[in-house]
Amino acid sequence: MSDFSQPADDPGTAAVSPDACAEALRSLREAGPLVQCLTNIVVANWTANVLLAVGAAPAMVDNPHEAGPFAGVSSAVLVNLGTPYDDTAAAMHAAVAAATEQGTPWVIDPVGAGGLAWRTEQARELLAAGPPAIIRGNASEIIGLTGGTGGRGVDSADTPEGAAAAARQLAQQHDCVVAVSGAVDLITDGRDTVRVANGHEWLTKVTGVGCSLGALMAAFAAVSDGRLLAATTATAMLCIAAQDAVEVSPGPGSFAVALLDALHALSPQRLAECVRLS
Amino acid sequence: MSDFSQPADDPGTAAVSPDACAEALRSLREAGPLVQCLTNIVVANWTANVLLAVGAAPAMVDNPHEAGPFAGVSSAVLVNLGTPYDDTAAAMHAAVAAATEQGTPWVIDPVGAGGLAWRTEQARELLAAGPPAIIRGNASEIIGLTGGTGGRGVDSADTPEGAAAAARQLAQQHDCVVAVSGAVDLITDGRDTVRVANGHEWLTKVTGVGCSLGALMAAFAAVSDGRLLAATTATAMLCIAAQDAVEVSPGPGSFAVALLDALHALSPQRLAECVRLS
Amino acid sequence: MSDFSQPADDPGTAAVSPDACAEALRSLREAGPLVQCLTNIVVANWTANVLLAVGAAPAMVDNPHEAGPFAGVSSAVLVNLGTPYDDTAAAMHAAVAAATEQGTPWVIDPVGAGGLAWRTEQARELLAAGPPAIIRGNASEIIGLTGGTGGRGVDSADTPEGAAAAARQLAQQHDCVVAVSGAVDLITDGRDTVRVANGHEWLTKVTGVGCSLGALMAAFAAVSDGRLLAATTATAMLCIAAQDAVEVSPGPGSFAVALLDALHALSPQRLAECVRLS
Repeated sequence: MSDFSQPADDPGTAAVSPDACAEALRSLREAGPLVQCLTNIVVANWTANVLLAVGAAPAMVDNPHEAGPFAGVSSAVLVNLGTPYDDTAAAMHAAVAAATEQGTPWVIDPVGAGGLAWRTEQARELLAAGPPAIIRGNASEIIGLTGGTGGRGVDSADTPEGAAAAARQLAQQHDCVVAVSGAVDLITDGRDTVRVANGHEWLTKVTGVGCSLGALMAAFAAVSDGRLLAATTATAMLCIAAQDAVEVSPGPGSFAVALLDALHALSPQRLAECVRLS
Repeated sequence: MSDFSQPADDPGTAAVSPDACAEALRSLREAGPLVQCLTNIVVANWTANVLLAVGAAPAMVDNPHEAGPFAGVSSAVLVNLGTPYDDTAAAMHAAVAAATEQGTPWVIDPVGAGGLAWRTEQARELLAAGPPAIIRGNASEIIGLTGGTGGRGVDSADTPEGAAAAARQLAQQHDCVVAVSGAVDLITDGRDTVRVANGHEWLTKVTGVGCSLGALMAAFAAVSDGRLLAATTATAMLCIAAQDAVEVSPGPGSFAVALLDALHALSPQRLAECVRLS
Repeated sequence: MSDFSQPADDPGTAAVSPDACAEALRSLREAGPLVQCLTNIVVANWTANVLLAVGAAPAMVDNPHEAGPFAGVSSAVLVNLGTPYDDTAAAMHAAVAAATEQGTPWVIDPVGAGGLAWRTEQARELLAAGPPAIIRGNASEIIGLTGGTGGRGVDSADTPEGAAAAARQLAQQHDCVVAVSGAVDLITDGRDTVRVANGHEWLTKVTGVGCSLGALMAAFAAVSDGRLLAATTATAMLCIAAQDAVEVSPGPGSFAVALLDALHALSPQRLAECVRLS
C-alpha cells in the first residue's frame, strides 16, 4: 500500500494527507462539535461515549417533536437505521429536512439496507430529501442501497473492493462521500478514492463500532470543509485507536473499554504517523 | 451434586453430558448462527456483545414492519419482554408467527411476568401462537406464567427448586424446554430435569445477564437438535465464564467486562471439564 | 470550603452531616430499594448497573400500560427526559400520578430542559402533577425550567452557583429539593443549601453519569426521611467513587468500569471521611 507522502495528481485525494488528518483532529478537539444522533437502541450508549472520548458533544434528540428544530442548532447530524420505528423514523425525516435547509452536514448509516425492505425504503427517502455529507456502511449495505440484495442483517457478505463501483455510483448520484468499512476501508467522493489500511479484526467483535464510526464522521464533518477528509480521519482515528487498544486487551470486552481510552489519548501527531492511506 | 459421567437411566438427560455441551459449543463457533433479538432498551447492547463474544451474529430487528420477514431468514429468534411497548410487542407477535411457520426455533424471556399484568398477557399470547423452543426466566417469572403472583419487577423472590413444578407444567403444556435461573439453574423438558451448579453471585450484580442467557439459548437452539442440550450448554457457558471472570475482577463493573473476555476465550474442552451437571 | 463538622445554625443543613450520609448508605444497602426508572435509551443500561452496584434494585418499567401500577409498588421512581417519545412520556405521566397518590418519592431529571421545547413542556406538566422529592439537573436545565433559555442539548453553559437563585425558586415553588450538578454540586430545599466539593472532570466524559445520579437520588429518597440528605448522599457517593476510580484508570472507558467497582466497594465509613460538604 503506497504512502500518501508520494505526490498525487489528484487534488481530491491529495487533500487527504496524514497531516490533514492531524489538523482535522486538532480542529475537532478545539471546537467540540455538538453532534445530534438519531441512532439505535443497541449502540446509543456506546456512540455517546465514543463522541465524548474524542472531544465531541453528543445529543441523542430523536423524537419527532424536537428532532427538526434541534438539527437547526446542531453542528452535525447522524441518522442511523439500526432499530428504526415509526416514531424515530419520523424524527429522522424531520432532522434531515432541517439539516438540509440549514446547511448542517448530516451522515446516514443505512444499517441492514438491502436485506431489510422497510428501512431500505426509509434510507432512500432520506437520501432523496437532502444530499448527505457522507453515507457510511459496510459493503453489503452500500450495494443494497443501489438495488443489490445486501447481507444478512448487519453482517456484510461483501468486501469494500467489491462495493467500490456501487460506492462511486452512490457518491455521484447524491453528490456526497461514501465510506465502506471492512478490513481495508474504502472512501470515495465519486471521483477520488482513499483507502485506510488500519484496524483490527476485534472491531467486528464489539457491537456498534461501525455505528460509532458514522457518528465520528459527523463530528469531523462539522469541523472540516472536506467531506472526504472528514470520513477518512474518522476512519483512521477509530482504526488506529483499535490497534492501540488491542495491545492491552485479553478479549473483546476489555478491548471495547480500551478503545475508548485510546480514542481519548490519541494525539494528532500519532494519528499522522500511524495512518496508512493509499 | 453427582457428576454426569455416572450412568443415567433417562435418555433425555443422558443426552445432556459434558461432552455433548462441548460439541454444541464447537457447532456454535462453526456455524455463527444469526440470532434475531427483540429485546429491551436496557440490555440490547450487552446482549449483542455477548452473542459476538461467543461467535454468534446478533441482529436486533424489532419493528413491526421487518420483524416477521426477518424471522423467516434468521437462525433463531429471541423475544424478551423487559421493556415492551405497543410497537415492539407487535413486532414480537409478527416474529413469533413467522418463526413458528418457518420452523425457526425461538426463545421467550418473560421478564417480570406475574408481577406486571400487560406483559404477562403478552407472554401468554405469544406462547399460544407457537410452541417456543425454550422459555427462560427466574423462578418468580416461571411461577408467574402459570398464574402465580410473581416477584417485584425483575427480581425473583423464589428459588428454582420452588419453581420446579411450575416449570414442568409449563414445559408439558407448551411442549418446550423451561429453564429457571438461580444459584443452581434448573432446566426441564417436562420429563427430564437437568441442574447446572456453576456461576457466581456477581451475575446478579450486572444488569441483563439473565437476558443475555436467553439470547445464548437461542444461539445454541439454532445449532443443536436437542433443546434441553441447548438450554443447558448456554447456562453452563455463561456460568463457567463468570467463574473465570470473577478471578480477575475487583468489582461488578470489571466483572462484566471480563465476562465478555471469558466467553470469547472459553474452549469446548474447558466447558466440558468445568460444568457441574446433575 | 469549610468542613461540616463546624456548628451550623440551620437545622436543615445540620441534618446533612458526613455521619448522616454514612447512615443513609447503610440504610440503602440494608433495604435494597426497588427503583422504577423511566429513563432514556442512552443510559438505561448504565443506570441499572449503577443501582445494582450500590445495592439497589432497578426496574425499567416505562410503558403506559404498566408504569402507573408499578409506581404504586416501587420504593421510588425516577423520571428522566433524555429521549422521551409519546409512548414513554405517557408512561411518565402515569407513573408520576400513581407515585403522587401513593406517596412514593419520585425524582425528575429534566435533561435538555430550556433548550428543547417539547420536553420542557412535559417536565412542567409533570412538576404540576407532583410535587417531586427531588429535581436534578445541570445548571442550564435548572435555569431552563424557570424560563431561561438553557444550554445546547445536554450540555451546561452555566455553573451551579449561577443557577442558585433558580434552584431556590424551583424548590420553593414545588416544595422539593433541587440538585444542580457541576464542579461543585449545589443542593437546596429552598431554604438551606448544601455544596459537595468532590468528583473529577472525567465524570463529564462518560455518558449518563448525571442521569445515574438521579437514579441514585431516587434510591436514597426511598430509604431516607430527608430529601436534602438523600440528594446530598447520592451526590457524595458518586463523586467520591469517581475520585477512587480515576486512580486506576488510564482513560474514560476504564474510568466508567472502575466507577462501578468503586460504587460497589465504597463503605459508609469512607464516604463520611471523604465527603467535602459546605
